[in-house]
Amino acid sequence: MTSARIAVIGGDGIGPEVTAEALKALTAVAGPDAFDFTHYDLGAEHWQRTGEVLPDTVLEELKGFDAIVLGAIGAAPGSKAIPSGLLERGLLLKLRFAFDHGINLRPSKLYPGVPTPLAPRVFEGREVDFVVVREGTEGLYCGNGGAVRIGTPHELATEVSVNTYFGVERVVRDAYHRAQARRRQLTLLHKHNVLVNAGSLWNRVFNEVGEEFPDVERRYLHIDAAMIAMVVDPSQFDVIVTDNLFGDIVTDLAAAVTGGIGLAASANINPSGEFPSMFEPVHGSAPDIAGQGIADPTAAISSMALLLDHLGHADLAKRVDDAVSADITERGGQRFSTVETGDRIAARLA
Amino acid sequence: MTSARIAVIGGDGIGPEVTAEALKALTAVAGPDAFDFTHYDLGAEHWQRTGEVLPDTVLEELKGFDAIVLGAIGAAPGSKAIPSGLLERGLLLKLRFAFDHGINLRPSKLYPGVPTPLAPRVFEGREVDFVVVREGTEGLYCGNGGAVRIGTPHELATEVSVNTYFGVERVVRDAYHRAQARRRQLTLLHKHNVLVNAGSLWNRVFNEVGEEFPDVERRYLHIDAAMIAMVVDPSQFDVIVTDNLFGDIVTDLAAAVTGGIGLAASANINPSGEFPSMFEPVHGSAPDIAGQGIADPTAAISSMALLLDHLGHADLAKRVDDAVSADITERGGQRFSTVETGDRIAARLA
Ligand SMILES: CC(C)[C@H](C(=O)O)[C@@H](O)C(=O)O
Ligand SMILES: CC(C)[C@H](C(=O)O)[C@@H](O)C(=O)O
Repeated sequence: MTSARIAVIGGDGIGPEVTAEALKALTAVAGPDAFDFTHYDLGAEHWQRTGEVLPDTVLEELKGFDAIVLGAIGAAPGSKAIPSGLLERGLLLKLRFAFDHGINLRPSKLYPGVPTPLAPRVFEGREVDFVVVREGTEGLYCGNGGAVRIGTPHELATEVSVNTYFGVERVVRDAYHRAQARRRQLTLLHKHNVLVNAGSLWNRVFNEVGEEFPDVERRYLHIDAAMIAMVVDPSQFDVIVTDNLFGDIVTDLAAAVTGGIGLAASANINPSGEFPSMFEPVHGSAPDIAGQGIADPTAAISSMALLLDHLGHADLAKRVDDAVSADITERGGQRFSTVETGDRIAARLA
Repeated sequence: MTSARIAVIGGDGIGPEVTAEALKALTAVAGPDAFDFTHYDLGAEHWQRTGEVLPDTVLEELKGFDAIVLGAIGAAPGSKAIPSGLLERGLLLKLRFAFDHGINLRPSKLYPGVPTPLAPRVFEGREVDFVVVREGTEGLYCGNGGAVRIGTPHELATEVSVNTYFGVERVVRDAYHRAQARRRQLTLLHKHNVLVNAGSLWNRVFNEVGEEFPDVERRYLHIDAAMIAMVVDPSQFDVIVTDNLFGDIVTDLAAAVTGGIGLAASANINPSGEFPSMFEPVHGSAPDIAGQGIADPTAAISSMALLLDHLGHADLAKRVDDAVSADITERGGQRFSTVETGDRIAARLA
């Protein structure tokens, strides 16, 4: 295996803490020479010190890497020191958009012994193992909107959801391929009875592309109905495809019902391969527990399986997945420190 | 009590079945002369027969009523016979918009003995009793959007979320009033780190109006984080205020965790009183179980408590609420037919 160049953005709050454990796992599974890590100091603190969110020169540099590992970005919600959305839109979303991360993968799996808020009778022995394929470069995330008469009783503020055939087709096709390689069932989540323009595009593409995958069963669910489905029987899902905002919402719920956001990994994939893909836990920077060494690094470590898979090392990816799942099962509901969990998983990989 | 004029739109699927039980409860609690019901035949079947969704003359007539009782509207999702959104946008949303239903109230309460998909340890004896105050006339529901190059690889489809100070202020103020009369806690759900224009308006109004309610504690949660909160500890909520789409999504989840959509009532309130308000169960027309007499009419009946309260009969509203809650608790997980449930509750009210 030739040495791959990885850019590392630990970010804010618990981001750097969990990222350190993710890199530990990568090194453990692939050896010390497999990856060449370059660290970038970006995020809330960096902005407060320098006024820079993501300089163009850094964005340019990042293009040259094979992959990006991201911890978490963002100040405490409601923090007065940092304008709302500055880091999310200037850094996290900027990377997703600049590097055309059209496929946002978010697997959810309920491991034996893991505490879930759902009652045991919801599962009745059925396995929960699905993946959400979220569009990552369109929808309401484009920053397309504005406001007039701000701060007056006549204020009007808009947000525009942008959906293109190009963006929808590629994520839907990707989802069909994944479904074909899994249990052959794909569910589209949308709200086409209200969002008729975007919904019609999503629906039509879903059905058209589906004709090329006759072995994949396709289903449609309104996003509101999906909320119910996710808590009354999450085992019904195999692959879910949806837009950027619905994907954001449903993946937090999916994470919650499968053991919490501390276990949820994600990959932001650039489908053309022109730009580096980016791997990050679904959770945020969790400023309330930052610096205490208690954040669960499992999601960050699991994201490394997605990275390895993306870089063509399916065998190593599987080893990380197996180590994570063995460790999750072994620890059950027990809590370990960030470093302890990282060490436990690294030890399994060494 | 003078006789109030009520327009009744049973609608599609299970709509007419549950509506009959709702009217039975109204008559039982208020006597046979309190209400004067006028039935309107609208919905999927009516459209298929006549090509009419909601004629202007009917819309005009409806204005003269004191309130509207609605069952459910909508064909089976994926039904080829009826274009997606035709009935939702042409009838249900048309009424909400034409009659300026700016306040969409959706209470959620977990009654003792009611089956919930959440594990008992989620509650630990805490009560779940909150109300979502959903904006009903703006956001992504305006039908503001379009598409170009439809059906080509260059298709672009947009949906525009429209938010005005007028619409946001009145729903936020309403929510503060409700919180003040309850446990004095109000949570705003939004996604202001991504939807910065709309989010800034909502956030600002939330904080500004909040200054007038110093006794109400205010909290902000991102909509994705709210998904987690709703399943790991729904008892934390008292009043929630949010926009039209987020409200749609979170209320289905809220219904699911508090015993299911069969119990969830709603009111579409016209704050100025110029137009009739409308009362409906949160659930849809459920074509899969229509005609079998097995739909649970509890949500439709509960909606009558909201109607009574709105028409100034707080005492009768409380009697309906008490009868519903007693019946829900008594029946536990047991299932009754639509008419049986209606009869049981009516008997308690007579
Ligand atoms: C931080 C935020 C911008 C981001 C998103 O909304 O995509 C996060 O919630 C996520 O799911 O990755
Ligand atoms: C039927 C649909 C248009 C409607 C909505 O989205 O508001 C329904 O889901 C609801 O919650 O009342």
